[in-house]
Amino acid sequence: MKPVSTTSLLVLDLAGTFVFALEGASTAVQHELDLLGIVVLAFVTALGGGIIRDLLIGSVPPNSIRDWRYATTAFFAAAVVFALHTQVSRIPFWPLLTLDAAGLSLFAIAGAGKALDFNISPLLAILLGGVTGVGGGIIRDLFLAQVPAVLRTDIYAAAALFGAAILILALKLKLPSTLASVLGIASCFLLRMTAALEHWNLPKVLNR
Amino acid sequence: MKPVSTTSLLVLDLAGTFVFALEGASTAVQHELDLLGIVVLAFVTALGGGIIRDLLIGSVPPNSIRDWRYATTAFFAAAVVFALHTQVSRIPFWPLLTLDAAGLSLFAIAGAGKALDFNISPLLAILLGGVTGVGGGIIRDLFLAQVPAVLRTDIYAAAALFGAAILILALKLKLPSTLASVLGIASCFLLRMTAALEHWNLPKVLNR
Amino acid sequence: MKPVSTTSLLVLDLAGTFVFALEGASTAVQHELDLLGIVVLAFVTALGGGIIRDLLIGSVPPNSIRDWRYATTAFFAAAVVFALHTQVSRIPFWPLLTLDAAGLSLFAIAGAGKALDFNISPLLAILLGGVTGVGGGIIRDLFLAQVPAVLRTDIYAAAALFGAAILILALKLKLPSTLASVLGIASCFLLRMTAALEHWNLPKVLNR
Repeated sequence: MKPVSTTSLLVLDLAGTFVFALEGASTAVQHELDLLGIVVLAFVTALGGGIIRDLLIGSVPPNSIRDWRYATTAFFAAAVVFALHTQVSRIPFWPLLTLDAAGLSLFAIAGAGKALDFNISPLLAILLGGVTGVGGGIIRDLFLAQVPAVLRTDIYAAAALFGAAILILALKLKLPSTLASVLGIASCFLLRMTAALEHWNLPKVLNR
Repeated sequence: MKPVSTTSLLVLDLAGTFVFALEGASTAVQHELDLLGIVVLAFVTALGGGIIRDLLIGSVPPNSIRDWRYATTAFFAAAVVFALHTQVSRIPFWPLLTLDAAGLSLFAIAGAGKALDFNISPLLAILLGGVTGVGGGIIRDLFLAQVPAVLRTDIYAAAALFGAAILILALKLKLPSTLASVLGIASCFLLRMTAALEHWNLPKVLNR
Repeated sequence: MKPVSTTSLLVLDLAGTFVFALEGASTAVQHELDLLGIVVLAFVTALGGGIIRDLLIGSVPPNSIRDWRYATTAFFAAAVVFALHTQVSRIPFWPLLTLDAAGLSLFAIAGAGKALDFNISPLLAILLGGVTGVGGGIIRDLFLAQVPAVLRTDIYAAAALFGAAILILALKLKLPSTLASVLGIASCFLLRMTAALEHWNLPKVLNR
């Protein structure tokens, strides 16, 4: 069961990599990092989550170290941002949000599916789906010496976990793996988009 | 030689996980993270040190990824803090310090013992005992964009290293492994408690 | 092909470790960390890059966990800084810059060569050479809650990547591995020294 990682779906995986790398590189520009910082943030934002997942499940070297196409895609996104930053920064909010939600959904479901392939228990596979989806963004924020945004606000990692849980539930119900993947991806995507549209947030503890 | 990781001692390991997760979750509340942030900080504070140790000694997937009971324990602690934060925040200082020192001691000695099982040299096994004890707290502080407290002040990591060193010395002296573990745990615990009671700190370099 | 890691070149590797550990420990003193902080920053600055590389290529346990001489060298550097900080802080700028550039060059070329040994593709081997050279400094900066300097300014990581690229180009041209290593090391060293002398920086995107 390799819901998204098969050859026929490689293009989707690389598309998600490109979107996340574009966002990482743009963040680097906003924080006045130099060309190397742009490349590094593109790389870690796009590939960091999958690398952590692969280290944790024992799939070493990680996919994006083994296959040069991932790094090349991230570099290409960094080059696009470096050359065309003004144009990239003018991409309207909604298309970018939609692409980002699509990338998050693909990464989370692919990550949870790969964890299952490596005999990780369902609970941890859901978590590793979340790590795949948001781990790169967490590393990006740490590199910028900021508390990761995903820990403070918004329904983002929660959408990744929800989609991964739907995938695993569907697989437990013996649905075909393609259908299970589609259901997982759609669940994550719809929750993320609705939450952004409705400004949903996770609850906090009222701290006195 | 598995001083703490055997089935009969699993409950101790999970108790340490619960205490550390409780502290991580409480810190998340203090920093106004949302529910996801509370869960993540509970998880990384409790399990991050052991995960780093396992990655470094080549025990992959790490114990807490392989066995769902660790993650479940961390989530349970996060739920307790989320539901009962006011009550948790009223736990007096001394019981909490004592439980934390006990958790530190168990983690450090279990970590050093596991490193030895994987044929790591005594010096590095001591270090990996320290990493097991304090690694989670370091990741928690990094996630909060703070210099890890353990690097600046207090006898905390030093107690973990001391306990791990006593364990390894006792094993070199051919003491039975259970006795060696008890000696290591007691050494770490007593040093930590005395240091907290007496406000001991490690020396600093007077920087001009 | 093990350009720098063979027994006969171990002394060079340990010398690089010593220089980087000295810098990490000195930074810890400047930030008023305690003795444990000094030791930890010495260790991660000197050995962090190689540890990340080894985890990513699947060489586990990492070299510096397997061989106690690396940790011992880092501790010795920490002890030197702790005992003789005033004297160490008076080392003039140019000798320190030269030693640091030499350490960077050795680490980057050794890192790229080891990645090739583990069948990593040339592009990723260059990147892993860069990670070996600058990864430790990035972890040091993260521990100090700062944006890694290497992402913002200076030709530093770029020199590591350039040297690693020259090594791999030379190997592709079937040059003997010793000559390829020397060319890679010299390229990195000369670019780093020239950049420091001429105050070269990588370009940034003018962000409005």
